[in-house]
Amino acid sequence: MRIDLNADLAEGFGRWELGDDDALLTVVTSANVACGFHAGDPTVIRGACRQAAAGRVAVGAQVGYRDLAGFGRRFIDVPPGELADDVLYQIGALDGLARASGTRVRYVKPHGALYNAIVHHEEQAGAVVAAVRAWDPGTPVLGLPGSRWLALAEAAGLPVYREAFADRAYTPFGTLVPRRERGAVLHDPEEIAERCVRLARGEPITAIDGTPLVVHADSLCVHGDTPGAVVVALAVRERLEAEGLTLRAFTGEEG
Amino acid sequence: MRIDLNADLAEGFGRWELGDDDALLTVVTSANVACGFHAGDPTVIRGACRQAAAGRVAVGAQVGYRDLAGFGRRFIDVPPGELADDVLYQIGALDGLARASGTRVRYVKPHGALYNAIVHHEEQAGAVVAAVRAWDPGTPVLGLPGSRWLALAEAAGLPVYREAFADRAYTPFGTLVPRRERGAVLHDPEEIAERCVRLARGEPITAIDGTPLVVHADSLCVHGDTPGAVVVALAVRERLEAEGLTLRAFTGEEG
Amino acid sequence: MRIDLNADLAEGFGRWELGDDDALLTVVTSANVACGFHAGDPTVIRGACRQAAAGRVAVGAQVGYRDLAGFGRRFIDVPPGELADDVLYQIGALDGLARASGTRVRYVKPHGALYNAIVHHEEQAGAVVAAVRAWDPGTPVLGLPGSRWLALAEAAGLPVYREAFADRAYTPFGTLVPRRERGAVLHDPEEIAERCVRLARGEPITAIDGTPLVVHADSLCVHGDTPGAVVVALAVRERLEAEGLTLRAFTGEEG
Amino acid sequence: MRIDLNADLAEGFGRWELGDDDALLTVVTSANVACGFHAGDPTVIRGACRQAAAGRVAVGAQVGYRDLAGFGRRFIDVPPGELADDVLYQIGALDGLARASGTRVRYVKPHGALYNAIVHHEEQAGAVVAAVRAWDPGTPVLGLPGSRWLALAEAAGLPVYREAFADRAYTPFGTLVPRRERGAVLHDPEEIAERCVRLARGEPITAIDGTPLVVHADSLCVHGDTPGAVVVALAVRERLEAEGLTLRAFTGEEG
Repeated sequence: MRIDLNADLAEGFGRWELGDDDALLTVVTSANVACGFHAGDPTVIRGACRQAAAGRVAVGAQVGYRDLAGFGRRFIDVPPGELADDVLYQIGALDGLARASGTRVRYVKPHGALYNAIVHHEEQAGAVVAAVRAWDPGTPVLGLPGSRWLALAEAAGLPVYREAFADRAYTPFGTLVPRRERGAVLHDPEEIAERCVRLARGEPITAIDGTPLVVHADSLCVHGDTPGAVVVALAVRERLEAEGLTLRAFTGEEG
Repeated sequence: MRIDLNADLAEGFGRWELGDDDALLTVVTSANVACGFHAGDPTVIRGACRQAAAGRVAVGAQVGYRDLAGFGRRFIDVPPGELADDVLYQIGALDGLARASGTRVRYVKPHGALYNAIVHHEEQAGAVVAAVRAWDPGTPVLGLPGSRWLALAEAAGLPVYREAFADRAYTPFGTLVPRRERGAVLHDPEEIAERCVRLARGEPITAIDGTPLVVHADSLCVHGDTPGAVVVALAVRERLEAEGLTLRAFTGEEG
Repeated sequence: MRIDLNADLAEGFGRWELGDDDALLTVVTSANVACGFHAGDPTVIRGACRQAAAGRVAVGAQVGYRDLAGFGRRFIDVPPGELADDVLYQIGALDGLARASGTRVRYVKPHGALYNAIVHHEEQAGAVVAAVRAWDPGTPVLGLPGSRWLALAEAAGLPVYREAFADRAYTPFGTLVPRRERGAVLHDPEEIAERCVRLARGEPITAIDGTPLVVHADSLCVHGDTPGAVVVALAVRERLEAEGLTLRAFTGEEG
Repeated sequence: MRIDLNADLAEGFGRWELGDDDALLTVVTSANVACGFHAGDPTVIRGACRQAAAGRVAVGAQVGYRDLAGFGRRFIDVPPGELADDVLYQIGALDGLARASGTRVRYVKPHGALYNAIVHHEEQAGAVVAAVRAWDPGTPVLGLPGSRWLALAEAAGLPVYREAFADRAYTPFGTLVPRRERGAVLHDPEEIAERCVRLARGEPITAIDGTPLVVHADSLCVHGDTPGAVVVALAVRERLEAEGLTLRAFTGEEG
């Protein structure tokens, strides 16, 4: 049995650092690398790509809205044609730096408000799918099970992978408990690691109301933008390995 | 005998248009496409790439400093490592949109203040060369004869091409008369076209002091950012064709 | 009887020009000056302020979303606190350039997608009102009659002024016919000028279905971003003056 | 005897934090607040202004080049007219947020590469002086003794104040030892605090070659962009107070 761990990386910009890329890249098997629109200047991107290449971590394009001031966390009503062009630009830019670092863009995972919008927003979801197909119709995409994004990607023939969140509570319907609600985010490393083992094995986890819930996931998303988060991510990895699970990128690279 | 005509394209941004890309792309054989740092949003870039692909015009990466407010015309003292990363980012971004439009990045020509800086600035010239090599060591570069940029590119094994300027006066030493000096820019379409024929044939032109001067050029740069400039560019093309010269991209695509 | 004419100005950015500020500033009595977030670099802003000061045209802050690539025409889901800060920043920046040009910010009129959003969006409308009050509770605001923006501004004690659109068709309910519908935009200078005279006199105009409609307006908005638009604006001014109407800024400056 | 302590604040941007504004604002008497061009979004600026107002710390405009990616640390060859407009825009923007926070812009201190450039660059120094005068000819400016910036400001009638650096080594000529040289930056809190006492009293400090050196300073610059730096700044303040020196903004506010 194998599982993938993904996290967001290269989210600094110029003088500003965010997260500990060096540490995270020893933990994850897939790196969602920011592409410069919401975070990630070319130098921090290249640094992450180099280390990912050295550590055989798969590089994914973490595409977002053009919004440095908002870190890509504010919905922008971008017309679909423009959004598709913005996504292609970002994938290409990252790939330019990736190939100079001995790797390539292996998958696409949207970021922040765009990630959330395309769970439901038909036009924007379609725009991102169109961009990925125009880039390369064999490019895998990563996203939320049940989202329009994954449905449209699958219909367009893109290889589709599902992710679960290591530290987020689920409703009995398999959706995430909104962050503003009590108990939405898990903090106990032990509980998070235990849940990850169950997710990786396809065993039911416990929804916020106590209901058993099976979540099918090809990848587990861990966070790394705080020192504590890196510690948790590391605990997750160690526990998964201790339980005999193989950590490997969903795209097939060896982690 | 054959010659290439190059011009800057995709230099609008969002609501702002600049130049007549549609008209210019019926004139030139090589399009220096802006890459988003000094001009060129993803949508205007993609539009230019599409039409370039349809018209068999070679797409080049017109890389510049990150400076929308200054249109890339202000020298920025970017450390070489960062500059190389900025250039790779831009080439990759353009290539992402180019491949979605049925073409690819065929060459690299820096823009504005970066173009001028790397005539002499050893470190920045070296940084751009390093970026192009890291992208693909077979990528042709276009620039000013005698510049450090072309010298370092050649030393690094990149295919090097030289350009002459259709509408700029030359000193007897083969350098451009600075814009601020009288007579630095030619305006008469007939004179410009005549000069282009001579440049294309390798015949001497007349320097600003009357001296005959041979300028070796693989490509002639025409301007297109004003309605008048497009008319001149068209006159140049017609005259070259009337004189029996073949217009073809220096990279080999058919114009 | 008197009326104000307002138009958007200083909407260029760096190398990119938009509209003919010089011509428009001989026509209007109130200038909605872009503040740098959706358009308007400091130099184009200062130029507009200087000419406005010389011509006794009132300077208003045309505040928008931070979105150069989208020209402020895309809704952005900015949290109200951040939006208020963005608006204050823009008003202050414009005022810095205005006072160096012999004038000051006399009123505030939001731009583009923000203008449209705060017709209904309670939180964002409240944020813009809060920003204007924090700047100076005596600052007049200009907007669409019936909008939440004007209602909340009035409730907060700000001096409120209503505008009508010279070249837009109205529904019988006094709202604008959406641009995508047939007949939404008027093009005939004679018809536009005639309508402006009626609006200025408080006489009914004809809604798109033929119904007579009275629109109360303190200011008429004309456009100037195309050469044709300036011609229309000039025709409107001449007609209003020929009919004996006094053109004066709603804030009281003499036009 | 009294002295001022100044430090850079509000240097985060959006999601990215930098330095501990809350802690620093309990230490300094003058806050160089970033204005959005090299760092500082409107919300972080407003937060710093609010706390500065509450703590009676003087707010200064820390104006810089338009360069978020480079944090204003890269020289940009901005023409003087544009630079003056950029500076006015920034001062105005900060003042908009300052007045909404119960304070105003009290002085101007350029940042980073602009600070360094105008030590010698006549045209850019003159442009910043012109901008400050156009804003308000009574605005105090803070800078390096011996710089063209202070000389031109003084000649233009602006109130001029000199700063010394708490943690930088000096040459026997009173200039700073370049950062790249050994011993350029002091790290020992005790040594730094001792030096600050001497600077505040007008007593000679020891230059890097052992020579005694008198540096006249109206303000001492401390750093705060790392946790350690805040500790040092606090140690400096405590030592100065223990030695009976009064900490007060050079502009006259009570710290």
